[in-house]
Amino acid sequence: MTQTTLDYLAARQERILTELIEFAAIPSISTDPAHRADIERSAAWVAGQIAAAGPFDVQIIPTERHPVVFAQWLGATGKPTVLVYGHYDVQPADPLEKWISPPFTPTIRNGRLYARGASDDKGPLFQAIKTAQAFFATQDALPINVKFLFEGEEEIGSPSLEPFIQAHTSLLAADFVISADGGMWRVEEPSLTVSSRGLAGLEFSLTAAAKDLHSGRHGGAVTNPLHAIAALIASLHTPDGRVAVADFYDDVVELSAAERAAIAALPFDEAAYLAEIGAPALFGEPGYSTLERQWIRPTLEVNGLWGGYQGPGVKTVTPAEAHAKITCRLVPNQDPAAIVARIAHHLEAHLPPGVRLTIQPETHTAQPYAIPADHFGLKTAAAALRETFGVEPVTVRMGGTVPVCEVFKRVMGLDTVFFSFSTADEDFHAPNEFFRIHRLYEGLEAWVRYWELLGSSR
Amino acid sequence: MTQTTLDYLAARQERILTELIEFAAIPSISTDPAHRADIERSAAWVAGQIAAAGPFDVQIIPTERHPVVFAQWLGATGKPTVLVYGHYDVQPADPLEKWISPPFTPTIRNGRLYARGASDDKGPLFQAIKTAQAFFATQDALPINVKFLFEGEEEIGSPSLEPFIQAHTSLLAADFVISADGGMWRVEEPSLTVSSRGLAGLEFSLTAAAKDLHSGRHGGAVTNPLHAIAALIASLHTPDGRVAVADFYDDVVELSAAERAAIAALPFDEAAYLAEIGAPALFGEPGYSTLERQWIRPTLEVNGLWGGYQGPGVKTVTPAEAHAKITCRLVPNQDPAAIVARIAHHLEAHLPPGVRLTIQPETHTAQPYAIPADHFGLKTAAAALRETFGVEPVTVRMGGTVPVCEVFKRVMGLDTVFFSFSTADEDFHAPNEFFRIHRLYEGLEAWVRYWELLGSSR
Repeated sequence: MTQTTLDYLAARQERILTELIEFAAIPSISTDPAHRADIERSAAWVAGQIAAAGPFDVQIIPTERHPVVFAQWLGATGKPTVLVYGHYDVQPADPLEKWISPPFTPTIRNGRLYARGASDDKGPLFQAIKTAQAFFATQDALPINVKFLFEGEEEIGSPSLEPFIQAHTSLLAADFVISADGGMWRVEEPSLTVSSRGLAGLEFSLTAAAKDLHSGRHGGAVTNPLHAIAALIASLHTPDGRVAVADFYDDVVELSAAERAAIAALPFDEAAYLAEIGAPALFGEPGYSTLERQWIRPTLEVNGLWGGYQGPGVKTVTPAEAHAKITCRLVPNQDPAAIVARIAHHLEAHLPPGVRLTIQPETHTAQPYAIPADHFGLKTAAAALRETFGVEPVTVRMGGTVPVCEVFKRVMGLDTVFFSFSTADEDFHAPNEFFRIHRLYEGLEAWVRYWELLGSSR
Repeated sequence: MTQTTLDYLAARQERILTELIEFAAIPSISTDPAHRADIERSAAWVAGQIAAAGPFDVQIIPTERHPVVFAQWLGATGKPTVLVYGHYDVQPADPLEKWISPPFTPTIRNGRLYARGASDDKGPLFQAIKTAQAFFATQDALPINVKFLFEGEEEIGSPSLEPFIQAHTSLLAADFVISADGGMWRVEEPSLTVSSRGLAGLEFSLTAAAKDLHSGRHGGAVTNPLHAIAALIASLHTPDGRVAVADFYDDVVELSAAERAAIAALPFDEAAYLAEIGAPALFGEPGYSTLERQWIRPTLEVNGLWGGYQGPGVKTVTPAEAHAKITCRLVPNQDPAAIVARIAHHLEAHLPPGVRLTIQPETHTAQPYAIPADHFGLKTAAAALRETFGVEPVTVRMGGTVPVCEVFKRVMGLDTVFFSFSTADEDFHAPNEFFRIHRLYEGLEAWVRYWELLGSSR
């Protein structure tokens, strides 16, 4: 049966590409109110494609801002139910002058489709719809029950998504989530992403005098808040790069030797990485590799630091205040609120004399997320990739935060399998975003195999 | 003879005040090209007053920007020659709406003359001219040889003064300088200022990656320049407040026990000082009092510190760069260039791994200055104040930098005695500047006594 479905897709590659070009031509920029009609058009285009793919129940559901396209087909009695997530909105395209071809005039060059949103996330989202179409066309059914949840706010932080999920937990009920958003780390080796880091943060300020003081008249007699904030920030790490906040690492779940060995086995060229980012050296927590520092270890980073005079030349002030912004990347099982409390305690305990401290916790936090290594959906995804690419997919992780999988876990208890065929180098948020056309076809095959394997498992 | 001269002045108090009101009504704002004609008018007014005072050789000498009024009378053969310094320009008056009476409509309230420049420096400068007039009127001569050097650029940093002095060292030759600019620290006790601190500085930057990095993807693997700059700045001081730069204090001339005892004997209310500046506590180098920290100890102060994101909310970047501006207040015999070199060496030696350092020395430096405690002009000034006020004047110091005395010392080898009758609380650079009218008359008496004592000394 698989072959029939795959043959169907193989025979229609050019037509699928043409349709994707049509989709990518819609400038569905979610952040720009001027593109509100394009967002509506994009949602309608997606809904229309789903309706054309088969007997789905399709809805365009309004939210506070941009609509959700929801669809479901639940005809595979006794089979697993998956909730496929993706987004039909795109990043802004500026700076426009840096695009070789216009961002919303999708253009093929060297086997790549260049267009804003082609890789993030229109191509990968479209693959799921075309997979459904291929099954319905060749088998009159899907091998599993499928729900589609495609939002239009991902590029603006998904403000309506969590309320939407909370309001529709029954409608969205599934065994697990397959995210068509995400992407593989490199084009050379198929990969599955199994964890992302959480986020916590705070801003703090130190004040001394009521206003900036003349450093001649007063300098030396009162605490300079810039000296104090430097000492306080320096106290947050040991000189060799560990976070020095008490109990910071207490709740960290250490990876198994096998998991660490898998990371160590990944090809990673440190010199190439340094050249890519332009830094003179690698530096981080002792005892961990660069990939481990980015993926499985928590961080505490100062994102902004300021006080006093920043203009040209000299201004001889002892400033009245100093400010810093801090965020942490968290790993299982660190809790954002507990981490903020520990940092706040550290700041209070290490406060230099002569300054006042105020702390503003950041309300926008996220739990770290990891899918269990033996998760049924994850293992089946690995099998589908192995069948498609002929190699065992590697296990990778994300240093960043993926709010959507954290929300699905927290609100609905659902794990998320990242199953996307974009690649991390495809300039998602930059000029000349592209999607590899061979990945469009490889991904369609992998989606077919994934659903077949899920359907045959029980 | 003194009594005759003093009687002459006492009989003319009201007329002298009226003339000062005329002088203070000229809006000689040096920074504002729109007031160029007022600067010229102010210089001419001063020159006219000197010419009317007696048989001076008066010149208005152009410079690159605003003219110098120079005058001399050298008829006291065998007597000392003093160079009296002052400035006829004034600060801008804005914010105008905060003035109770208009800044250039001099107004008397509660025994004070309110006007921009009344205290800084028109009143004190005018006292020197009227002193000369009183001597010529009553004795047909001055008791000493007197040169006047009144500039019009003090409030814009005296850019033409050093070139002028360098070009006119013979014309300006004198035994020492008496500065009519400066002012006493408090109205309660007559004071003589005997030192000012020097200035040196640098700006430095740390860079890591070529651009700001996503703190999720890269955080933890490369040095965060904000962490590095915090550690580097923290390393510049010991936690208890000493400068930790090697050899920083090497050239500092320690004060004698008697000099330190004189500072300790000065009344200084720490609680009132803290209330004035609004700081929660005093903090500084161990082993020294607050006044000592401000006057006789060198400082290293970060005046500005910045890097990363400073806007509202969160931006999860690992910044590419961090910057700091540093100035030092120096005391005898610290050398600005040597201090900058030592700080640069410290920064290089303590540079955290993974960042690049660039240092930009500040070219605007000043030597520290102190007049020898046994200087003839200083001791005679103390005697004149004692005779005038009936109490021993206290010895005070300045935490700030007075470029003019540093230039006189460096270029001509001349020491400077500050002999001004303005008071530090007279809002020089703020709205509602005023000059105490009783200080106008007390100062005239003190100038007469000072010149008489200088003239009778040899």
